Amino acid sequence: MDSLEEKTLHTEKIFSGNVIDLQVDDVELPNGEKSKREIVKHPGAVAIIPFSADGEMYLVEQFRKPLEKTIIEIPAGKMEPGEDPLVTARRELEEETGFQSDDLTYLTSFYTSPGFANELLHVYVARDLRKMEQPLAQDADEFINLVKVTPEEAEQLIEQQLIHDAKTMYAMQYWKMQLLIEENE
Amino acid sequence: MDSLEEKTLHTEKIFSGNVIDLQVDDVELPNGEKSKREIVKHPGAVAIIPFSADGEMYLVEQFRKPLEKTIIEIPAGKMEPGEDPLVTARRELEEETGFQSDDLTYLTSFYTSPGFANELLHVYVARDLRKMEQPLAQDADEFINLVKVTPEEAEQLIEQQLIHDAKTMYAMQYWKMQLLIEENE
Repeated sequence: MDSLEEKTLHTEKIFSGNVIDLQVDDVELPNGEKSKREIVKHPGAVAIIPFSADGEMYLVEQFRKPLEKTIIEIPAGKMEPGEDPLVTARRELEEETGFQSDDLTYLTSFYTSPGFANELLHVYVARDLRKMEQPLAQDADEFINLVKVTPEEAEQLIEQQLIHDAKTMYAMQYWKMQLLIEENE
Repeated sequence: MDSLEEKTLHTEKIFSGNVIDLQVDDVELPNGEKSKREIVKHPGAVAIIPFSADGEMYLVEQFRKPLEKTIIEIPAGKMEPGEDPLVTARRELEEETGFQSDDLTYLTSFYTSPGFANELLHVYVARDLRKMEQPLAQDADEFINLVKVTPEEAEQLIEQQLIHDAKTMYAMQYWKMQLLIEENE
């Protein structure tokens, strides 16, 4: 099988921001032709699926400027450079929900948009949640409402397109599968 | 419940490309403070979960420059402005796999990275695939290997991090759930 690799001929740095950087690479394609690739660099992120003791899930409601609307997601946040994703998971869970967990387990990782971005998202499952007396404060520019939902309520939020992003849809499918497996046991 | 909305005070256009545009918005936060939001604009995309008649799945192997590696994904492609996602789905399925489908059904949609991008991805399921005699050509700068996998092979590709992106992980979970439901019938 031939290599599909694209060689970088030149990188033009366009933008360096707080969350993302943007560059355009001139590349040589496998057939020797040339093309351009627009690339968003992101430090990576962590998301947490937080189950309550009574079998419900905690979600966060947040305005997302790129969508110009408020949606409901599992808690998540970006990693500091070089940070262990488990450390990010603990911090973001506490900041966004006010809970900590003694049972925070790694589930999976995926690239959110490999066509134009290198963002890698690590997903954890949190059980045995403990309410923190004085939880870590949210970031100064983050405004969040905590929401607790049953599987039926989550289903309605999907229909209403209030749950509408990849990581939360993945979490909802994971939840459904867990319930299906429990039912069959 | 208070509004979480962020008002746009000013938009600075940074970059306009073939795939994405970038802008930075100055916003007024719900508490009256000010902040900046880095926003990638994307026309939206479509992905297809293509099942073969013998219960396997077709995937495409492709070099992803933002990741600097070759990964294996469900077929996908971006929408032309104003295009019906079903039209995109038919085109991308044929271009990337050489198949058409008489049973192409809408499954779901999700934002891939709502923190910094407005990309909305529509997911379709394709069954009853027909091999096209003279399929639509791939884009000039796209180089793709078609791969057909069993559920066990897909599982191995996930472990090897060759399947490693959100839409394909979602598709794999969907496949697992379908098999679980069939088993129980």
